[in-house]
Amino acid sequence: MGSDVPNIVVVGFGYWGPNMARNFAHIGSANLAGICDGNPLMLEKAKIAHPGVKLYDSYDEVLRDDSVDAVVIATPVSTHAPLALKALEADKHILVEKPLAGNYHDALSVVEAAEKNGKVLLVDHTFCYQGAIRKIKELIDSHQLGDLYYFDSVRVNLGLIQRDVSVLWDLAVHDLSIIGYWIKEEPVAVSCTGSSHFEGKPEDVAYLTLFYSGGFIAHVHVNWLSPVKLRTTLLGGEKKMIVFDDLDPVEKIKVYDRGVVVEDNPVGDNLAPLAYRRTGDIWMPQFDMTEAIKVEAEHFVNCIRGKESPITGGKDALRIVKILEAAEKSLRLKGEPVNLEGDR
Amino acid sequence: MGSDVPNIVVVGFGYWGPNMARNFAHIGSANLAGICDGNPLMLEKAKIAHPGVKLYDSYDEVLRDDSVDAVVIATPVSTHAPLALKALEADKHILVEKPLAGNYHDALSVVEAAEKNGKVLLVDHTFCYQGAIRKIKELIDSHQLGDLYYFDSVRVNLGLIQRDVSVLWDLAVHDLSIIGYWIKEEPVAVSCTGSSHFEGKPEDVAYLTLFYSGGFIAHVHVNWLSPVKLRTTLLGGEKKMIVFDDLDPVEKIKVYDRGVVVEDNPVGDNLAPLAYRRTGDIWMPQFDMTEAIKVEAEHFVNCIRGKESPITGGKDALRIVKILEAAEKSLRLKGEPVNLEGDR
Amino acid sequence: MGSDVPNIVVVGFGYWGPNMARNFAHIGSANLAGICDGNPLMLEKAKIAHPGVKLYDSYDEVLRDDSVDAVVIATPVSTHAPLALKALEADKHILVEKPLAGNYHDALSVVEAAEKNGKVLLVDHTFCYQGAIRKIKELIDSHQLGDLYYFDSVRVNLGLIQRDVSVLWDLAVHDLSIIGYWIKEEPVAVSCTGSSHFEGKPEDVAYLTLFYSGGFIAHVHVNWLSPVKLRTTLLGGEKKMIVFDDLDPVEKIKVYDRGVVVEDNPVGDNLAPLAYRRTGDIWMPQFDMTEAIKVEAEHFVNCIRGKESPITGGKDALRIVKILEAAEKSLRLKGEPVNLEGDR
Amino acid sequence: MGSDVPNIVVVGFGYWGPNMARNFAHIGSANLAGICDGNPLMLEKAKIAHPGVKLYDSYDEVLRDDSVDAVVIATPVSTHAPLALKALEADKHILVEKPLAGNYHDALSVVEAAEKNGKVLLVDHTFCYQGAIRKIKELIDSHQLGDLYYFDSVRVNLGLIQRDVSVLWDLAVHDLSIIGYWIKEEPVAVSCTGSSHFEGKPEDVAYLTLFYSGGFIAHVHVNWLSPVKLRTTLLGGEKKMIVFDDLDPVEKIKVYDRGVVVEDNPVGDNLAPLAYRRTGDIWMPQFDMTEAIKVEAEHFVNCIRGKESPITGGKDALRIVKILEAAEKSLRLKGEPVNLEGDR
Repeated sequence: MGSDVPNIVVVGFGYWGPNMARNFAHIGSANLAGICDGNPLMLEKAKIAHPGVKLYDSYDEVLRDDSVDAVVIATPVSTHAPLALKALEADKHILVEKPLAGNYHDALSVVEAAEKNGKVLLVDHTFCYQGAIRKIKELIDSHQLGDLYYFDSVRVNLGLIQRDVSVLWDLAVHDLSIIGYWIKEEPVAVSCTGSSHFEGKPEDVAYLTLFYSGGFIAHVHVNWLSPVKLRTTLLGGEKKMIVFDDLDPVEKIKVYDRGVVVEDNPVGDNLAPLAYRRTGDIWMPQFDMTEAIKVEAEHFVNCIRGKESPITGGKDALRIVKILEAAEKSLRLKGEPVNLEGDR
Repeated sequence: MGSDVPNIVVVGFGYWGPNMARNFAHIGSANLAGICDGNPLMLEKAKIAHPGVKLYDSYDEVLRDDSVDAVVIATPVSTHAPLALKALEADKHILVEKPLAGNYHDALSVVEAAEKNGKVLLVDHTFCYQGAIRKIKELIDSHQLGDLYYFDSVRVNLGLIQRDVSVLWDLAVHDLSIIGYWIKEEPVAVSCTGSSHFEGKPEDVAYLTLFYSGGFIAHVHVNWLSPVKLRTTLLGGEKKMIVFDDLDPVEKIKVYDRGVVVEDNPVGDNLAPLAYRRTGDIWMPQFDMTEAIKVEAEHFVNCIRGKESPITGGKDALRIVKILEAAEKSLRLKGEPVNLEGDR
Repeated sequence: MGSDVPNIVVVGFGYWGPNMARNFAHIGSANLAGICDGNPLMLEKAKIAHPGVKLYDSYDEVLRDDSVDAVVIATPVSTHAPLALKALEADKHILVEKPLAGNYHDALSVVEAAEKNGKVLLVDHTFCYQGAIRKIKELIDSHQLGDLYYFDSVRVNLGLIQRDVSVLWDLAVHDLSIIGYWIKEEPVAVSCTGSSHFEGKPEDVAYLTLFYSGGFIAHVHVNWLSPVKLRTTLLGGEKKMIVFDDLDPVEKIKVYDRGVVVEDNPVGDNLAPLAYRRTGDIWMPQFDMTEAIKVEAEHFVNCIRGKESPITGGKDALRIVKILEAAEKSLRLKGEPVNLEGDR
Repeated sequence: MGSDVPNIVVVGFGYWGPNMARNFAHIGSANLAGICDGNPLMLEKAKIAHPGVKLYDSYDEVLRDDSVDAVVIATPVSTHAPLALKALEADKHILVEKPLAGNYHDALSVVEAAEKNGKVLLVDHTFCYQGAIRKIKELIDSHQLGDLYYFDSVRVNLGLIQRDVSVLWDLAVHDLSIIGYWIKEEPVAVSCTGSSHFEGKPEDVAYLTLFYSGGFIAHVHVNWLSPVKLRTTLLGGEKKMIVFDDLDPVEKIKVYDRGVVVEDNPVGDNLAPLAYRRTGDIWMPQFDMTEAIKVEAEHFVNCIRGKESPITGGKDALRIVKILEAAEKSLRLKGEPVNLEGDR
């Protein structure tokens, strides 16, 4: 079992699995060794898309196959943890679709098992591999924005309401992965509000605030009932501010040379002794346009080869699940803050 | 003292007073009888803008003048209640800049005094007089949207931070007036989060959620530190949904013929038996383009003449102040919900 | 040779051929029977994309194969006519990429040969099969716009400059097909201006005006050197006006209820006794979102089966080539008008 | 008659005159000494707007007044030349609304008279005083765009059709002034097409191409029948390209670091050995936001004082009128090119 061109099996060929299979098939550094799905219809689709690739209708058979180095788990959320644990026991590296698990306890067991078995655990927080997101991280890390004031994201559309998880686990999970990637500090508490508009269904609209020990604050608005699709993030800093519009094909990142300065002479009786610096230019930097999943697939291979460390590994995914769980609790309590720190 | 063409005196000629004076000077139904300001520089500006109009440097003098029918109070928030009470005692009708007062107690005393003295109390919630806002109210009231799901507003810009009130009292007050105008039901609780980024200054970013007894939910995002100016409201309904962009000079109101329908056959295992109706058209209705302050000024005159009842009267303003006060309390408690019902 | 599920061979697997092959492979009504290309590299790509489909490196072999009912010619423009003529002689139906030929003489010979041999000749003017373009045709044909005033199109981007044909033959050809599809009347003359910015290269910027016998006028702006991509068409009518933005994923078609009315009382001394009617709404109708090539592929099959007549047939394509040829002539003469009527 | 704070009289208080009067009243360097209009209603409006300013109902009286240093002529186009000539004879400096005259002959007589009498002649080509236009001139003059390829402007809206002049003289005049300001080279010929849609009325849609001796080309699209208002200019250069959108309140100027480079290895058989450089950033420089008319008014005063030379003087205006006249001629000839060079 040589890992130089690792053999990868994609498990689950529903909505996301085909994207994973396509990317592992196309990068030269890995070998798409098989596709596994319990549903014969899905296997039929896999056969058309990837003629010649081995098809499995049994997950156990995949795990028994010694030539398989790694599995990509693209199945429903509730099955992530059990499938991941079995794979780790069978000595396979794993790439798990987001979120790592539907609760903190399950997610923790996967992270611990991966550590114990010394296998790579990568979680598919795709946005962290997108060129624009990485470009903004560079701007943050090189202190071009100065101290950060706030993160504010709107991620809304007319989306299919899911039966078992709220819009938080479907959409806010993306923003939490971006926040974790951009912001070094950890949030200390979360407040979340929202509403469900169809009886017996999970929340379709939610608003989540993350509190930090300094003045920094993060807010995420997710909504499955919006007539328009919006993917807009504001990132306010002391020196510069960014508007990231993921739907704009050309002008995704706008960097505003604007900010606030403390002034000696108050402007008026009722106004604080602060002034705005508006005179700066606006700048739209270019960034790497490579498809995020391709970057991620190559990163997974490099982790297997021991050349890189997971950018979106178990601990990162665990923090996200922890915040989602706390947000759900706050949501039930109409926004009452829930602490994220301390032993749990 | 005949009220047929009432004599109006504008008190305070700072930021907002000039707009008020200009509109009362131009409508034929009222007479701009004077301008009052304690600051000689402001009186000098008033003289240039309105040559021939009587200037007062003393508020008491205005109130003693029997020919004055009404005063427009456009002074700092903290002075609204005392000036309003004195005007009512002097038997003048009043139009007060928003918010009516800086706290519920003061606002209540003004409302009670106006009722007792039988004078008109109008509060300057300007947006309720804007053509686009009134057009959307028509669409709501004629049930074209069906049951309402949510109200979501973003009102952010790089604005001057105020010394004594938070961004809630400066910006969210507008959304609360629009919500009160559009939505018949009353909110039962509020949760609010936010942050201040300059030591000793009030909150410059805030997020406010209003809970209602049904599934309807309202959310307001206000921010003084945004690099871009945004004024966008989403209004989701069962049958139709609206996007209101107040900054678009032409396409302010977009009505989307989209919604959610319950389906018999679930789409997939993990998805709820709901489907989206996306096939409808988008429609941008025209609306009255008259300047809102002009409509408001004429409405004030008609209220004085007894021909109309205040659209944004004392009780409406009181509810807004009550919500703002509760939101401030929730903000201190990191989002803990604060009830709005019950005797107070 | 039964045409009920006709056997189609795609000839040329460069830029456009793969799209054609993919669509004929996916519609149930036709059979993608083969792919032909003289370049082994292209055949290798075809093999990967369409495993199991017969590959031809010789066009003559395709034509000798009696089981082949039709060929899709997706080769460079200069080869269209010779390949088309050979296919018609071999009794095959043909679908030819746009433009039908590089000059009027060649195009005419293909049209005449198709008529003589009684075979289907369809030219790939894809836009005429796009839902939005067809929706606008409906609005025109149902007289909702009233008399038409003008057609104005901007089709610019940073595109690869072609060695042998000017931007007219690459981009304006699309607008000419749309004009032919929407406008019943024929243009009587053309004026064209433009410029080449690289020595020895064809024009990369061009402006084309079509004159009609009434007041209607059409203008097309094409440009390979634009920093931004624009695809915007204005269509002015007596009763309504349309803005078609092909790059807007949602709001492609906007119908403006605006126009001009003759007024009795002139507004001023210097102004004509005309007034604008601006009070109408804006409306964004929905339309069929099916991929245009798929609609076209199915239409080609239906033409072969004798169920439909070519929407973009030989005569339509011939008119377009005639206009392009006249425009080129006018371009050399710095805009001097060239007649399109008369015997040629 | 001291010119240090020159006394200015605005002649004509219709559409444009009030803007001129307001600006001359507000700049400290000039004195708005009077307003002249033959129409008593206009004088009444002037009285309200500028109480205390001397009103004239006779132009001759203005010219006889020795205290008047300069007149601003804001009357219908056909009166520009006669009023200007009389003012120059009366030894007044003049600022004339655009266009300087309705034909080349008249414009020339004014320019010659101003030279002979040694008075300042400024023509109100306002755009040349706008911050964004001046910023772009800086970028051009500092060679940041490299060699220029093309100028392309769209200036369309639903505008009041004028009785006596075509849309060229109303709208294209602005673009010609901008072209003259930005581009050092002179055009050698013009081709113009267009159409009139109302019997007996001048052209309401027009397209104008300016040819230059190199590859540079300029095109202007003006239209009074557009459902939407557009003010967009593309400026293509070898090194950088600009999109100027005058209607965007924030992002007026976008500088694209894109261009074309000659490549050694051709991309494909049918493509020229050129490639596009797309990797550059987009940049939105800030610029002076001062109202253009104010800048222009101060410039006029400085010209009177002898401190500056007219930026939009007689010769500039003359060239514009010459192009408009030639364009009208080409328009009658359906685009036939008309030379601009040579003795006339």
